[in-house]
Amino acid sequence: MPRRGLLIILSSPSGAGKSTLARRLMGWDPDIRFSVSATTRAPRPGEQEGREYYFRTRAGFEAMIASGEMLEHAEVFGNFYGSPKAPVEAAMREGRDTLFDIDWQGGQQVRNSSLGQDVVSIFVLPPSIAELEARLRTRAQDSDEVIAGRMRKSRDEISHWAEYDYVLVNDDLDATSARLEGIIAAERLRRERQPGLNEFVRGLNREFDMRGTA
Amino acid sequence: MPRRGLLIILSSPSGAGKSTLARRLMGWDPDIRFSVSATTRAPRPGEQEGREYYFRTRAGFEAMIASGEMLEHAEVFGNFYGSPKAPVEAAMREGRDTLFDIDWQGGQQVRNSSLGQDVVSIFVLPPSIAELEARLRTRAQDSDEVIAGRMRKSRDEISHWAEYDYVLVNDDLDATSARLEGIIAAERLRRERQPGLNEFVRGLNREFDMRGTA
Repeated sequence: MPRRGLLIILSSPSGAGKSTLARRLMGWDPDIRFSVSATTRAPRPGEQEGREYYFRTRAGFEAMIASGEMLEHAEVFGNFYGSPKAPVEAAMREGRDTLFDIDWQGGQQVRNSSLGQDVVSIFVLPPSIAELEARLRTRAQDSDEVIAGRMRKSRDEISHWAEYDYVLVNDDLDATSARLEGIIAAERLRRERQPGLNEFVRGLNREFDMRGTA
Repeated sequence: MPRRGLLIILSSPSGAGKSTLARRLMGWDPDIRFSVSATTRAPRPGEQEGREYYFRTRAGFEAMIASGEMLEHAEVFGNFYGSPKAPVEAAMREGRDTLFDIDWQGGQQVRNSSLGQDVVSIFVLPPSIAELEARLRTRAQDSDEVIAGRMRKSRDEISHWAEYDYVLVNDDLDATSARLEGIIAAERLRRERQPGLNEFVRGLNREFDMRGTA
């Protein structure tokens, strides 16, 4: 049965397992499209146009904002980041979901956009802050100062948990992954997400008519 | 984590597999409580008070309606049927879900009751009317007239599909059962259904404080 594509917003503080959960979700259903952001920051070695980011000049990015081509955008440390709208709309027309790995600011904008009714938003919490900090420290050999900055950003991100539809505490990656998949599977079964039901029920009524059921 | 109990409303035309799905759902999670209806109709052989129904006199039933003890009720062929409210509220306090096997009239009343915000409603459609009629005919050696009456009632029930949160087409019992379980598992993860999250996040913030994260 045809269905409307979802806009899946996955947010969490850095170190709570969001990237791994996103990757697993796309492994679970390879039809889910990952929303690649546009940015004005310079490409780093190994980054490819359209894979990690769409790289744009500042003027090009501002033109996209002005013409309403950005579903959401923000300026972080002097660089613009944003989610282009056109690929999301194209995916929705095909009944495909789009996954957004964005923070609370992006989440708010997408939720309040013209596509807001198709948003399913999920916030991932760490089991503890000790765990969060341990993951941040394992991941990279960063200075205490850099770690402290990430922790401040994490605290700010966590403060927005109550704006999300679903909240998962990631105390076990396999269990959390399964829960996330379950949420997406269930959301696809919501009545308004299955536009084919109208025609299906019309078919049942034609069958009643043929059988002479008043 | 403590959570709010759900009011699960399962409706469908007779013959679409609703009773089997209800039984399986309670097998999946034995903590789900089945809402036993009260009725003024006489007990049939083998029926036990509190198992199939709570049997009440007409005066007793009307007193329950008058004192607001009924979450929903309807009169069908001269008999009253209704769902007592107190056991549902008791289950909710324990964080347990209650399953209602009721029709669209009952569903509307529960959805519009004081407990409406905790309702998850699911409508089960048959894959076809031919299939529905076949199941009705297999089940009992009823006259064509009785079957025709049930078919009319089924058509009326199906006409209310669009009032439900979720719609399942029961073309495969195992798949439909799994989808139903998935819906309930996902609904339990909705933010507002996990009141323990407030305290959990307060705990994370205390941890931030102890680590000196501003």
